[in-house]
Amino acid sequence: MAQVQRMSRLMVKTLRDDPADAETLNHKLLVRAGYVRRTAAGIWTWLPLGKKVYENIARVVREEMDAIGGQEVLLPALLPKEPYEASGRYEEYGDLLFRLKDRKGADYLLGPTHEEIFTQVVKDQCSSYKDLPVILYQIQTKYRDEARPRAGVLRGREFQMKDSYSFDTTDEGLAESYALHRGAYQRIFERLGLDYRIVSAVAGAMGGSKSEEFLAPAPAGEDTFVDCPACDYAANTEAVTFALAPVDGSAHGPAEELDTPDTPTIETLAEHLGVPASATLKNLLVKVDGEIVAVGVPGDREVDLGKLGEHLAPAEVELVTAEDFEGRDDLVRGYVGPQGLDKVRYIADPRVAPGTAWITGANKQDKHVKNVVCGRDFEVDDYLDVVVVEAGDPCPNCGTGLKLDRAIEIGHIFQLGRKYADTFQLDVLGKEGKPVRVTMGSYGIGVSRAVAALAEQTADDKGLCWPKEVAPADVHVVAAGKALQTELALDVAEKLGAAGARVLVDDRAGVSPGVKFTDAELIGVPQILVAGRRSAEGIVELKDRRTGEREELSVEEAVARLTA
Amino acid sequence: MAQVQRMSRLMVKTLRDDPADAETLNHKLLVRAGYVRRTAAGIWTWLPLGKKVYENIARVVREEMDAIGGQEVLLPALLPKEPYEASGRYEEYGDLLFRLKDRKGADYLLGPTHEEIFTQVVKDQCSSYKDLPVILYQIQTKYRDEARPRAGVLRGREFQMKDSYSFDTTDEGLAESYALHRGAYQRIFERLGLDYRIVSAVAGAMGGSKSEEFLAPAPAGEDTFVDCPACDYAANTEAVTFALAPVDGSAHGPAEELDTPDTPTIETLAEHLGVPASATLKNLLVKVDGEIVAVGVPGDREVDLGKLGEHLAPAEVELVTAEDFEGRDDLVRGYVGPQGLDKVRYIADPRVAPGTAWITGANKQDKHVKNVVCGRDFEVDDYLDVVVVEAGDPCPNCGTGLKLDRAIEIGHIFQLGRKYADTFQLDVLGKEGKPVRVTMGSYGIGVSRAVAALAEQTADDKGLCWPKEVAPADVHVVAAGKALQTELALDVAEKLGAAGARVLVDDRAGVSPGVKFTDAELIGVPQILVAGRRSAEGIVELKDRRTGEREELSVEEAVARLTA
Repeated sequence: MAQVQRMSRLMVKTLRDDPADAETLNHKLLVRAGYVRRTAAGIWTWLPLGKKVYENIARVVREEMDAIGGQEVLLPALLPKEPYEASGRYEEYGDLLFRLKDRKGADYLLGPTHEEIFTQVVKDQCSSYKDLPVILYQIQTKYRDEARPRAGVLRGREFQMKDSYSFDTTDEGLAESYALHRGAYQRIFERLGLDYRIVSAVAGAMGGSKSEEFLAPAPAGEDTFVDCPACDYAANTEAVTFALAPVDGSAHGPAEELDTPDTPTIETLAEHLGVPASATLKNLLVKVDGEIVAVGVPGDREVDLGKLGEHLAPAEVELVTAEDFEGRDDLVRGYVGPQGLDKVRYIADPRVAPGTAWITGANKQDKHVKNVVCGRDFEVDDYLDVVVVEAGDPCPNCGTGLKLDRAIEIGHIFQLGRKYADTFQLDVLGKEGKPVRVTMGSYGIGVSRAVAALAEQTADDKGLCWPKEVAPADVHVVAAGKALQTELALDVAEKLGAAGARVLVDDRAGVSPGVKFTDAELIGVPQILVAGRRSAEGIVELKDRRTGEREELSVEEAVARLTA
Repeated sequence: MAQVQRMSRLMVKTLRDDPADAETLNHKLLVRAGYVRRTAAGIWTWLPLGKKVYENIARVVREEMDAIGGQEVLLPALLPKEPYEASGRYEEYGDLLFRLKDRKGADYLLGPTHEEIFTQVVKDQCSSYKDLPVILYQIQTKYRDEARPRAGVLRGREFQMKDSYSFDTTDEGLAESYALHRGAYQRIFERLGLDYRIVSAVAGAMGGSKSEEFLAPAPAGEDTFVDCPACDYAANTEAVTFALAPVDGSAHGPAEELDTPDTPTIETLAEHLGVPASATLKNLLVKVDGEIVAVGVPGDREVDLGKLGEHLAPAEVELVTAEDFEGRDDLVRGYVGPQGLDKVRYIADPRVAPGTAWITGANKQDKHVKNVVCGRDFEVDDYLDVVVVEAGDPCPNCGTGLKLDRAIEIGHIFQLGRKYADTFQLDVLGKEGKPVRVTMGSYGIGVSRAVAALAEQTADDKGLCWPKEVAPADVHVVAAGKALQTELALDVAEKLGAAGARVLVDDRAGVSPGVKFTDAELIGVPQILVAGRRSAEGIVELKDRRTGEREELSVEEAVARLTA
């Protein structure tokens, strides 16, 4: 009977109405169905049903991590400052880090991720190449003081992650550890019943060479990714690259100055000249580590400052302010053009290819120039893909127009390389008797977030609708209400439990059959078994939660079917 | 093969020497055998072997909590200040609480225990007597900023606990929930193989009516408890009570003043008069909420200020200072006697029973009085048992002299009553349609601490020696070193694994048999199977880790024996 949970004793209180502060489907349904409860902004309590789903996901993750030789450990969540100061992240994390002091005034933080501490553990435990490779993982609570925690358990400030770290002596070894994780993640998400895409990601500030994200498409997602309808290309929008393709610019006439009063923006300029914005060149001024730099993109495109920052990291990128123009006669605000900007580094998007001609600022008030040809009239110092990707941009693989979709990041795998090993001088004795610097991978799955992602992807208009492997029970037995029906429901629940099924049985007295059916659909166990009208004959009704298909069966048939 | 763990791949590095900072057996051995690693003071990393033992304990706890109808939930560790301010504990915890602020400046704490939040969860989820009783539990990380974290994982600042809370509408219901927990705890500790005693504890500042502790006797323990060698009485020293037994005091002569120059202490007085300290009355002055109170105990006994504080809570008890005597001519420091202390409340230990006669201060400098009889020459306002218990004190049950022992507190069960329900107005609708205030129990098991307690109780001079249910493996297979031996060891490990045993196999190359045997004994898996001298014949040696008994067996016999 251990597998049978009676609703009359289970702490679950369903709500008919969405919570006032809920905007996303998973938030609404997980609260309404009694899976989670908000304790503070971005800080959640897992109620009994939610804890079961969470544990089912954690179990699948553990099984697949063990299968690739991962060793489970548990590191603290309360961490001393020093290792994070050594890596520079104590500062870099900024407001995202929860910081605190102990009674003696020593500085601590709540771990947002554990690269530093894992590196120290391996430095302490492994001394020879014979001790490697090693894959360590933990399923643990993480803390990030998000500015805007949102979407229920999707983006919390306290949340649960599986994070793992691989340690190898060679790049080939790292590639293999990475491939093992990639395979394990595929098996995990398939077993969980998640629809997901693997996309290229930028390595970004973490350094390292290769990185992919596992994205679960969902409207509530915070990530945008591009998807090629023609080939298998998919990528984080920040990772999309546009190839530089020079064109023949010899037919363009000479540059010609235009009188363009009061046209400091692309919109006013395009309107004044009667040309499309795409014919103009937008030159954004930014400060890179305090030095002014111009960034050129086609007039109809936006600069993605995040992408620009990733490209230029660890240099810091800021927008310019009015004061930055003081004493700079070469910079005419609203009328900047790359030609003649000798003292300023010029970065351009690959769309501003050699040979292309543009209408751009004349570096004089109220003047522009047309037929400004890249490579003839100005030079680009660095080509960096910095525009915000848009639907219809060509696929870097096949050229087809890309689609843009929203998704939830559920996993991330990352070849970190030697960044942390360098910080902590993590060496082991190599085969030749000399120290070898270790190379690392870092890999994460949002376990609590996966609950939200599954809710988003599988729910329908009646409520939650869990895949079998993660559902809080296999069968939800509903006693329609009369004594005979309750008796039959408890009997069939006991038989199902004895045969190994995980059973939730709604034996509540004084609750109408209608409410019980509505609750069963809201709670979302995959199979619903009703002891109703024909209970006296020993006939029950089996309903598939997803399809709504119904079938009348004898108790014996139902038990056999559900425990097959 | 999922059950087989190769030592060549396992992250475990054994140490021959005790860590310099380790004082207790569990600390030394858990570090030396590679189970845990210190990350910061009182903050530990669980390495693979340690995590396995920890998870085995957690599994047993879960199974027994589920068996009494406990529902597992997970509350946050990062908690808003407000509920703890409402209960008064945000202040009361003092330096023991880790406090922090989020990016907006809001106050948070790291949960030391969760009564407040569980009360709020139940208030939110339960509205009718039909929703109760309910038992909720979690296995979760707790934080207490101990002044002196010590003894490895025995007293950490970050540690793991199973805490549960029962909610009932009646006192009888609470008694039943308490009894269910008491039974579950007995089954848990028996299954874990812990030697334990259940002792009466004082309810203390938490209020509530009944409380018992589960203590594991061990020299490293921080708790002292009394144990009757004659009957089954056992109690926390603070909970031992001495019955008040008036005696006939009519034969004592009249009080008589003594000249006792320079005798402000019991020692100097007893020496001067040539009497035992037990013939004198010690009168300690303290301040209770600022008011001076005298506490009388026999001169050979010490006042237990903790006990006194518990008795008088929530009033605050402080020691008096020199300033407190200013303007108080009635209080002569070092010469206080209860006779004539009209303006001061007099609390006495039951050993100062009516009819007993004492030598005590005369309330004049350098003077004492003898034959001061309780009830004749002075009155006691309140009898409270406030002396430090000593070995040989009479058993409150049978009068036999008590023993004093050290122990580790591994569990605590507690009838809290309505303290938190009152704070948060936790009512449910009763059977008669009127609100009923809920009554609570609170119950804890130190899961990480149980690892330390088991290590303390079961280790021997060779190392750790785990009971089967918690051991990181069932069998430790040792390959003595030659290729043939390693082959046989891996073969038998695979067969054992396939038959369902959890196997650790020492297949390390380049490690001597002696080191492998020493490591196996240090790591402490209950059965050690050696592929050694007679490997060519398919004969292995089975050794019982605890008894050291050895037996030669064929591989088939060994597999059959170990998976029976």
